[in-house]
Amino acid sequence: MQRDIYLETTPLKEAISVWLNRLNSEDLLKPTEAEIIDVRHSYKRVTAEAIIARISSPFFHSSAMDGYAVRFKDTFGASEKNPIRLKIGEDAFYVDTGDPLPEGCNAVVMIEDINYLKTDKGEFIEIIHSAAPWQHVRVIGEDIVATELIVPENHVIRAIDIGAILSGGHINIKVRRMPKVLIIPTGSEIVEPESKLEKGNIIEFNSRIFENLLLEWGAKPIRYSIVPDDLNELKRVVMENVDKVDLIVINAGSSAGSEDFTPQVVKEVGELILHGVSIKPGGPVLLGIVKGKPVVGIPGYPVSAYITFDLFVKPLIFKWLGMEEKKKEVLKAKMSRQVASVLGKEEFLRVKVGKVGDNFIATPISRGAGVLMSLVRADGFVRIPAMSEGLGSGAQVDVELLRTKEEIENTIVCIGSHDNTLDLLANMLKIKNPKYSLSSAHVGSMGGLIAIKRGEAHIAGTHLLDEETGEYNVPFIKKILPGISLFLINLVYREQGLVVLKGNPKNIKGFEDLTRDDVTFVNRQGGSGTRLLTDKCLRELGIQTNVIKGYEREEYTHMGVASAVLTGVADTGLAILSAANALGLDFIPVARERYDLIIPKTFYDTEMIKEVLYIITEDKKFKESVVKLGGYDVSDMGKIIYES
Amino acid sequence: MQRDIYLETTPLKEAISVWLNRLNSEDLLKPTEAEIIDVRHSYKRVTAEAIIARISSPFFHSSAMDGYAVRFKDTFGASEKNPIRLKIGEDAFYVDTGDPLPEGCNAVVMIEDINYLKTDKGEFIEIIHSAAPWQHVRVIGEDIVATELIVPENHVIRAIDIGAILSGGHINIKVRRMPKVLIIPTGSEIVEPESKLEKGNIIEFNSRIFENLLLEWGAKPIRYSIVPDDLNELKRVVMENVDKVDLIVINAGSSAGSEDFTPQVVKEVGELILHGVSIKPGGPVLLGIVKGKPVVGIPGYPVSAYITFDLFVKPLIFKWLGMEEKKKEVLKAKMSRQVASVLGKEEFLRVKVGKVGDNFIATPISRGAGVLMSLVRADGFVRIPAMSEGLGSGAQVDVELLRTKEEIENTIVCIGSHDNTLDLLANMLKIKNPKYSLSSAHVGSMGGLIAIKRGEAHIAGTHLLDEETGEYNVPFIKKILPGISLFLINLVYREQGLVVLKGNPKNIKGFEDLTRDDVTFVNRQGGSGTRLLTDKCLRELGIQTNVIKGYEREEYTHMGVASAVLTGVADTGLAILSAANALGLDFIPVARERYDLIIPKTFYDTEMIKEVLYIITEDKKFKESVVKLGGYDVSDMGKIIYES
Repeated sequence: MQRDIYLETTPLKEAISVWLNRLNSEDLLKPTEAEIIDVRHSYKRVTAEAIIARISSPFFHSSAMDGYAVRFKDTFGASEKNPIRLKIGEDAFYVDTGDPLPEGCNAVVMIEDINYLKTDKGEFIEIIHSAAPWQHVRVIGEDIVATELIVPENHVIRAIDIGAILSGGHINIKVRRMPKVLIIPTGSEIVEPESKLEKGNIIEFNSRIFENLLLEWGAKPIRYSIVPDDLNELKRVVMENVDKVDLIVINAGSSAGSEDFTPQVVKEVGELILHGVSIKPGGPVLLGIVKGKPVVGIPGYPVSAYITFDLFVKPLIFKWLGMEEKKKEVLKAKMSRQVASVLGKEEFLRVKVGKVGDNFIATPISRGAGVLMSLVRADGFVRIPAMSEGLGSGAQVDVELLRTKEEIENTIVCIGSHDNTLDLLANMLKIKNPKYSLSSAHVGSMGGLIAIKRGEAHIAGTHLLDEETGEYNVPFIKKILPGISLFLINLVYREQGLVVLKGNPKNIKGFEDLTRDDVTFVNRQGGSGTRLLTDKCLRELGIQTNVIKGYEREEYTHMGVASAVLTGVADTGLAILSAANALGLDFIPVARERYDLIIPKTFYDTEMIKEVLYIITEDKKFKESVVKLGGYDVSDMGKIIYES
Repeated sequence: MQRDIYLETTPLKEAISVWLNRLNSEDLLKPTEAEIIDVRHSYKRVTAEAIIARISSPFFHSSAMDGYAVRFKDTFGASEKNPIRLKIGEDAFYVDTGDPLPEGCNAVVMIEDINYLKTDKGEFIEIIHSAAPWQHVRVIGEDIVATELIVPENHVIRAIDIGAILSGGHINIKVRRMPKVLIIPTGSEIVEPESKLEKGNIIEFNSRIFENLLLEWGAKPIRYSIVPDDLNELKRVVMENVDKVDLIVINAGSSAGSEDFTPQVVKEVGELILHGVSIKPGGPVLLGIVKGKPVVGIPGYPVSAYITFDLFVKPLIFKWLGMEEKKKEVLKAKMSRQVASVLGKEEFLRVKVGKVGDNFIATPISRGAGVLMSLVRADGFVRIPAMSEGLGSGAQVDVELLRTKEEIENTIVCIGSHDNTLDLLANMLKIKNPKYSLSSAHVGSMGGLIAIKRGEAHIAGTHLLDEETGEYNVPFIKKILPGISLFLINLVYREQGLVVLKGNPKNIKGFEDLTRDDVTFVNRQGGSGTRLLTDKCLRELGIQTNVIKGYEREEYTHMGVASAVLTGVADTGLAILSAANALGLDFIPVARERYDLIIPKTFYDTEMIKEVLYIITEDKKFKESVVKLGGYDVSDMGKIIYES
């Protein structure tokens, strides 16, 4: 089996400039031609010409008030002592706001300023002030004068512009044609979401992300059906469609694997400009030109796909639309912990950001290129330069935001132990008050206490058992958080136990079975309350950890442990009952423990924390839904356990 | 003719709270019911339930690398000295990234780390490092574990969420039904844009602004055809449609004029909650309930319409969608001049904002409720409280932005004399570099010099003739701007003259004709170069200004003067040839003058000013288009006239 294993890797900045310069030199980045469309359907389109008023608005003199149109000369000398009387229908004409001025009239007297009289000679108005020329008249062109510029070329049309353009006498206008982008999902393993899933299948969804990003940017996505890993078929699809579109995006097959045909297709029918960029995630990008059209090969992992699509496709769309690419909103934040990074690759680190007190705190989240949820959960990216080996704890960083600053300011940062009720709490908060979000980072109970100490969290979930006293949480708070005024509030009592496959096929009865040769364990990370509980149980039984297979494999959440058991990575692990229930696993109870929330008093009176407290103290529906998860006792939910 | 002339006027804050509380008490603000839609078409929709993963992703163990799947136990003890050989097809299986792990395998060795061997006993891989359990394996649930929360209820779906939801095993999801809003344009004077316009007609466009605002907010607009001012017809349309929608918006007829039927309709078939709010513009708002549905009467003037639609309709849409209304971006700025405001009304002042040096400067623009272009041109609103009589020059204000801060920072602020070439320059800049905009405020040459002095403009256009020396601009700069380092750069030489109707029906030959009884003049505002020229000409001829009819009527632009002449408001006025040409007027030349741009050296080297300088010095197309306007000499365009 002969193949290229390594890609060349070009630094990001260079790659982008090579790509844009090359397309530019081939004249492939000029704005798309104009098309003529109805103004009423032009929202968010980009003008392809300066739009000049064809008629004035208003195009006749009209009354700006309800009242009587008069000739101002007729009103000269009017005063209280010498009121002037004008005959309706001859010298004064009733007009509503917007009515055209009758011929010869050049002022309007407001209805409030006249006295109406009816005599045998007819109807009259009487006025006691002379009218100024053109008073209360909207003269022709008051709003827009014919020939005036309404909006320039390359302008993104807003709702208000549509009004002005119609008012300026246009029905059809020239806008830039939306660039057409063909998206080809490729891979023999990927299937449509409707398919019956078989082992090895991956649901195709990257193209659906691209489609909607393109719509947002103002382009027209055309998604091809899934093309299997077949060189000739991929070539055929490219060649048959290249003339109909402005850009082809192939996802994936852009790497150097044995079934990665994108490079070969581009080489055979076009020109490969660049293959491989030194970024992480997202390295195996491919940039080429086929029959005068740009072709981009986007890697398959969803995070890589999202990042490289933004880096290499977005600039083209904006150039074609004659628009300036909006700068991403950048926020200065402090890193909550140290992050190591690979030298030589620019890393796009996903972070959660929270505003705790006056500081924005960025916390790194999962770094796998395949963890799409890391993007869903992320508030932004921190770029770690290629020449850096990482970021220190407390380092000042620029976060390119994926959410607005306002959303971040309204996010409750909950760092600490993981419990499934936190998901329920987050959802209930969003229902009660959509303004607020709760974001929870799962770093273990001890991590939560440290986050509170550093001022990096509003809330910490914790279930730390002090072996000496048998008391939960309070001894640790006294030791680790002296001098911090806080409340410790109970959320739930919950059951921890060993989770095993349905029917307990390995007949595991307790921790003593972990030493068996045929049993593999999955552990929780150091600093988590569950890990402390594990170690305490092992110590009590006098079991050495080095005889337990899998003791080194650490998961960060109860669901992670349950999932490892469900999928055969391990035979058992310690987790809460609700996690076992969620995945239909059996459960051998080990301990009942108290899970509390630490809330510093500084945040206790803020509106968003109050909403959370209201839910856990008053909301029956929330309590019910927690009980439904199984293994929870909510009798003390919301009770203040300790105060300092 | 008997009718209510005055509306009650409720303060804005009170009006909004009466409106929302009343609807709330009738249970009319709860989120819309859920509807089930395809995830792939759910972009920007709002979730009506928490979306929980139905399947794990990946749902099988898969390779995270291209390489060989092995049993990690088989690799124990491998080293350079003691390489381990595994038979392909029996103990090692080739896998591409994403391939499922063959049964029994629990680690992957990267292709880069193996040595491939072919012997007569078959194909082998040779490795020199032992594999860790589950290395290079994406275990089940690495991305999403089944039962995990993907996005909560009341979440606005983004492109990336669509990927995660599909990946979590959903094809259809529950989202909030888009609230339906019936828009009824009403008025016997309003016509569709396609109509042949007759005097008194107004093109209907407010509904088109509303439609697109509603789409932006996530609602579904339904526009009814134009309903004439007819009480019974309006009533019929309301009654026939009220059950099919969530909200009815009637525009206009909401005031108290003789043909304003909205109040009567609401009173007859429903309940009028409030009529008249003390804001400016936008007072005559009407709020009511008909058959359990909110009905809003929006005033007809476009600026009033836009403001009141935002204030009274937008909050309902967001409540119905279960979304938090985004705060408007607010910018701190300094007022460039004094603004008086009516006591007792909260005024929504439209302003242009520019960043000049370190300061954001807000300049008020036209205040007429009918001047839609004031909204098109505005960068934001400044709210002047009801209890304030106005704002002082230099006052610190909060501007609610209609553009982004970035757009404002990339806007060149040009304050001073008006010339039609500035429109061309603005358009050319937008074509050359869509990032930048040029906004020009027309306050006259003298106003421009003062703006430069105060640091409120990047560029000032000026054509001030010093009578003593006969020199343009320089003497004024020396007097008014001592100590400011600047360049004075020529833009054009241009012809000023008296504009008259085609064929010159009043046979006007020069300024001496302005004293005639049958001639009405239109003047330019004090401080404009054109006004100085007018006054100089009159002085030279010994004409007293008080004998000139219309001398007091001031326009702010050349186009304003030309328009006044075209429409019969005046018989003549002084303006540049290009303005006469634009409106097809005749022109009696009076003077040739130099029109220059003042640019302080502080801004001279900024990228955006350089773009402007490039256009006026190098761009032949720009020069040509200026010449085409007529009356311009571009031979010195871009030449530095003076430097200090």
